[in-house]
Amino acid sequence: MSATRKPIGVFDSGIGGLTVVKALMRELPGESIVYFGDTARVPYGTKSKSTIVKFSMENVEFLLRFGVKCIVIACNTSSSWALPTLRRYFKVPIIGVIRPGARAAVQQTRTNRVGVIGTEATIRSRAYELEIKRLNRAITVVSESCPLFVPLVESGWLNGAVSSQIASTYLSPLTRRRIDTLILGCTHYPLLAPVIQRAVGPHVTLIDSATQTAAEVKGLLAWNEWLSAPRRPQHRFFVTDEPYHFTEIGERFLGGAVRSVERVNH
Amino acid sequence: MSATRKPIGVFDSGIGGLTVVKALMRELPGESIVYFGDTARVPYGTKSKSTIVKFSMENVEFLLRFGVKCIVIACNTSSSWALPTLRRYFKVPIIGVIRPGARAAVQQTRTNRVGVIGTEATIRSRAYELEIKRLNRAITVVSESCPLFVPLVESGWLNGAVSSQIASTYLSPLTRRRIDTLILGCTHYPLLAPVIQRAVGPHVTLIDSATQTAAEVKGLLAWNEWLSAPRRPQHRFFVTDEPYHFTEIGERFLGGAVRSVERVNH
Repeated sequence: MSATRKPIGVFDSGIGGLTVVKALMRELPGESIVYFGDTARVPYGTKSKSTIVKFSMENVEFLLRFGVKCIVIACNTSSSWALPTLRRYFKVPIIGVIRPGARAAVQQTRTNRVGVIGTEATIRSRAYELEIKRLNRAITVVSESCPLFVPLVESGWLNGAVSSQIASTYLSPLTRRRIDTLILGCTHYPLLAPVIQRAVGPHVTLIDSATQTAAEVKGLLAWNEWLSAPRRPQHRFFVTDEPYHFTEIGERFLGGAVRSVERVNH
Repeated sequence: MSATRKPIGVFDSGIGGLTVVKALMRELPGESIVYFGDTARVPYGTKSKSTIVKFSMENVEFLLRFGVKCIVIACNTSSSWALPTLRRYFKVPIIGVIRPGARAAVQQTRTNRVGVIGTEATIRSRAYELEIKRLNRAITVVSESCPLFVPLVESGWLNGAVSSQIASTYLSPLTRRRIDTLILGCTHYPLLAPVIQRAVGPHVTLIDSATQTAAEVKGLLAWNEWLSAPRRPQHRFFVTDEPYHFTEIGERFLGGAVRSVERVNH
């Protein structure tokens, strides 16, 4: 099969990667997508590097069975820790969300003061910080992990007093350092964008890596002449736990019904 | 090896089961314990029955390698969904935390109005409710899942305004129904006991299954004449993710240093 007709592979620790799928569908409406969400072992963000790398390797192996033309790591935690290893092991082009998000922040900041929020594992990896510094050494990066944000989103507590209070607690160290740009370094966080924006104030620009990542994927496909001819795409979703939860709250992330979800064993 | 010298096996989805280990150490100071925490795949409480059963089967198989004389399921979620299947498959005596907790609540209530809180999976299973009703049909049971409690405890937010506000939100449906007894149906919740007690008021008795479960284990060993002779016990802890997090926050649950932690692959 010629590469143009092959699907794009996307994997995530669970459901959050659907925000990246949404951006890919918007940016590349003719491309078919195979999504893999490791919902039986979610979350990755509280786990160690070696476990994250091991799980990520297995996820890539799964997607390769579908002859994907490239693989997008939608998960920030996995992108932070596993990308170098995955690139060493596999020939298929693999795109993470860190570099696109970092690049967007570097382009956006006026005062060279950038904040990064993410899971414990993402922040511990310092992946965003290193990428931003590589692009522009003059930028000050302030990072903070926000471990309660994912459960808040999964519980559907997207606004209200509790979410606001948690957001203020996490974000006040960043506002004190006078950031003007904030990377939402976890696929779940864009759903809390209104609460986060209120906590940091209207002068701070929020960066969601998903849009930027989709643009980078488009660039990769165009460069290699792998872009699909205009046609009706076929999307498939695979998860490792039963699909009901994924289908139910997936809509929140995808902004539309999630169809063709199948369960697989790792 | 005679059963008296064999260790007790304990498994949990992660770290919370150490509260049960603590109770076992207090109640049965001469018994050696082999603990297994599935920290690479934690949590179980947000997952489906079939995944919980599959993981629990694997955990029992792991513990059987150590010739354990009985197995304690410290995890409420796993006890709720997997216990019947495990008992069907394995000959080793297996004790869950549901029946001991239910029995304690039935003995405690004066007004026959009992509340149960737990993970989404535990509450969905209705395991506590069915067990309480089996013991006393006249008791009204009011149940509520509290998905943010586990991440709160793991983040170390054991008191303060956010925890209080979340506790009030979850628990007000229970206090409105005028419960006088509340089962803390998750190993993490005893660490939030002060916050929970304030939210439900001083007249509500909190039930922690751990103590009651340890007493039931003691009864089982005594009945079979499997109790260890007085001696210095040897405890071993196995986890599926890297041990540092387990060792670090395990102390919070065990009330003492966690030693001899080894990592294993499932």
